[in-house]
Amino acid sequence: MTASQPPDHRPGSEPGRHNLDPHLDRYAARTAGMTASEIRALFAVASRPEVVSLAGGMPNLAALPLDSLSTQMAELISEDGLVALQYGSAHGVPTLREQICEIMAMEGISAHPDDVVVTVGSQMGLDMVTRLFCDPGDVVIAEGPSYVGALGSFAAYQAKVVHVAMDDNGLIPEALREALANAEQQGRRVKFLYTIPNFHNPAGVTLAVERRAEIVEICAEHGVLVVEDNPYGLLAFDGQTYPALRSLDPDNVVYLGSFSKTFASGLRVGWVLAPHAVREKLVLAAESATLCPPTLNQLVVSRYLETHDWKGQIKTFRENYRERRDAMLSALEQHMPQGSTWTHPDGGFYVWVTVPEGVDTKAMLPRAVTARVAYASGTGFYADGFGSRQMRLSYCYPTPERIREGVRRLAGVLESEMELMRTFGSVQTRAVSGPQFPGPDTA
Amino acid sequence: MTASQPPDHRPGSEPGRHNLDPHLDRYAARTAGMTASEIRALFAVASRPEVVSLAGGMPNLAALPLDSLSTQMAELISEDGLVALQYGSAHGVPTLREQICEIMAMEGISAHPDDVVVTVGSQMGLDMVTRLFCDPGDVVIAEGPSYVGALGSFAAYQAKVVHVAMDDNGLIPEALREALANAEQQGRRVKFLYTIPNFHNPAGVTLAVERRAEIVEICAEHGVLVVEDNPYGLLAFDGQTYPALRSLDPDNVVYLGSFSKTFASGLRVGWVLAPHAVREKLVLAAESATLCPPTLNQLVVSRYLETHDWKGQIKTFRENYRERRDAMLSALEQHMPQGSTWTHPDGGFYVWVTVPEGVDTKAMLPRAVTARVAYASGTGFYADGFGSRQMRLSYCYPTPERIREGVRRLAGVLESEMELMRTFGSVQTRAVSGPQFPGPDTA
Repeated sequence: MTASQPPDHRPGSEPGRHNLDPHLDRYAARTAGMTASEIRALFAVASRPEVVSLAGGMPNLAALPLDSLSTQMAELISEDGLVALQYGSAHGVPTLREQICEIMAMEGISAHPDDVVVTVGSQMGLDMVTRLFCDPGDVVIAEGPSYVGALGSFAAYQAKVVHVAMDDNGLIPEALREALANAEQQGRRVKFLYTIPNFHNPAGVTLAVERRAEIVEICAEHGVLVVEDNPYGLLAFDGQTYPALRSLDPDNVVYLGSFSKTFASGLRVGWVLAPHAVREKLVLAAESATLCPPTLNQLVVSRYLETHDWKGQIKTFRENYRERRDAMLSALEQHMPQGSTWTHPDGGFYVWVTVPEGVDTKAMLPRAVTARVAYASGTGFYADGFGSRQMRLSYCYPTPERIREGVRRLAGVLESEMELMRTFGSVQTRAVSGPQFPGPDTA
Repeated sequence: MTASQPPDHRPGSEPGRHNLDPHLDRYAARTAGMTASEIRALFAVASRPEVVSLAGGMPNLAALPLDSLSTQMAELISEDGLVALQYGSAHGVPTLREQICEIMAMEGISAHPDDVVVTVGSQMGLDMVTRLFCDPGDVVIAEGPSYVGALGSFAAYQAKVVHVAMDDNGLIPEALREALANAEQQGRRVKFLYTIPNFHNPAGVTLAVERRAEIVEICAEHGVLVVEDNPYGLLAFDGQTYPALRSLDPDNVVYLGSFSKTFASGLRVGWVLAPHAVREKLVLAAESATLCPPTLNQLVVSRYLETHDWKGQIKTFRENYRERRDAMLSALEQHMPQGSTWTHPDGGFYVWVTVPEGVDTKAMLPRAVTARVAYASGTGFYADGFGSRQMRLSYCYPTPERIREGVRRLAGVLESEMELMRTFGSVQTRAVSGPQFPGPDTA
């Protein structure tokens, strides 16, 4: 609508359809890609106490030492309140950026604190990196499936996602080569590979160490940046760490880190480690987005890292998650109908399940919630409609007992679904869209 | 650069110029508008203790009751830590959204908590609103001068800013009509009027009550949304409040609020009150930007509002700022050379100064810093290069004594500058760009 048209004249609206939003023709083109994620809609339903939610990705914080955190927080305000409650720089608190470098060193990264930019969770880092690099129509390569929040940021900047297959060893180098060659043949501008190498969300797999150098090399050869998202890297059940992609090619990898899974998600403290040349632009982008990250939260994290046995705390988290992973895997083994397969994560929060052929996880979800179990259906993790035979099960939050009960219920729902299929041929007709590359589950 | 070109081939770079950033051709077009603001560059210099900084906009938090805040924070973590440290919704904590509605009622706004979206400072609100509404090339109307952070967000989304003049009574309705008519004549898409009605940053003026309905009507007539930014509304030195534009046309005004100036900026808690139809898209945009605002910070603000005499606290802030405003105005009166004029704010943080003809505030700044006083030169507050004869002086942070000393030093620098002009005709040649509409200072 140009400004001279009266607000009631809406050239974009379909004849006969009445839209109640008077601002309809004012929105930017990018809003077309903004739709409520399936997971988001689920949160409301799945939060009813009788439902076992295997849908969300909330970390289990019960092991946090609230008493000592309470004391620390009080001291922080008494001793340093006028700093904690005041604006800071968009770059982030220097001491925290130094501590972040020490953490990243655990995964082989050698970085200067100047190249770290603190963000409001790593989601903001992702959004800022996309803002810096993606014009509408640019291509982002991502694993298929990929993190739903990343797909949301890419859509907000009108980038096109091309998915690349994984297997039990993570992203398949040959498939990446092929996707890049295809994009080049089509004359498309590929801006970066977005990858979650460790304990992938939602796939639950980890990029094999012997593939890492190859992935980084392929991207460098093709002039494509790597964006490495690593919120779960310190949550290997055996305490092992893997070399970060960033450590293999510092000038061509942007690394995203987070305290959401190793300390506390509600603080929203994450970071970006960028190549030096990119960092200044990143600070400027962050400044126009939020002026600065909350000073209080940065000082809380910094003090926690300084005064608390945070590595011991992560070990406790890991043990909690391992116990839950074990509960889920053994329940899946015990209850799931034949024809189901799933990944076997060595860390992180998620199992990626492929259900028997003919079952549509999105269509089944309301019946599952009626049976008091919730999951995240697979299509939300693809930008192209793929994933209708997949689901993500999270074991991070519920107790092991609830996890077992949830899987038992889920298996029951699947059995009913298959019973219907046997009786009527199929539960419902549906168009399977998206490329038919193999899912990540080869278990 | 397409993906098939080797990384060293950079079609965008000028021949003979060597740029050290290997990512140069990968950036999105929007990064062209990302440049370090003059104010930002200043912060580093002006933070030296011997410099009286009249440049920044940091609130003076010294009056905050740190002891009771410290206790509250400790209790919050002990009693409600697992909520405070956990993810929340992108919409914001419900109790806080209710409290925000009570605050807005003080300025005549009647709103439902569902239509409030909590953001990471109102800067994020501004960024989200621009994300929702502005395609590249769309026009945003803003006062001239305008808030530098808003100009940064508009640039990040490649919106074009058209400035409209103010006088001592704020935005001039006739000038707004003219700007809209011009834009329509040129076939440009105007998306919204961005306005700071109360104690304008940087102009220090307030939109007269009798103009408010007219401004809102003009925008409605032209099918243009109003974005009302109101961080200082409760900081009138006489305690008076003004009717918000939002109260006059709820369906066509997006309102931005903040706790940065009435409580604590380092918490980064702001909000957007949007028309109902816009609100859902806003939540989705916020979700892709940061997932959710920090839960801890929202609960800190909520608890503070519940347990503390926050209105009494704002009264204390107001009194501190009034004392500082008085110090600045009397020092300006006493020291400034003839030919200087300035605004007389009734609240907020800023005085907008026009210096004698021939003086360029941007060129003079290094000499001012050498004389141990800093200010924000006027050009940073215009998208079009105007403002070289203006400067913003902030009285919010320094003590009254330091403010007086700063103004005395500044007047000395101006005198030397004018002395040079008298001797050599002008201090330096410069191109005055931008429209020649009157500045906001009619004092």
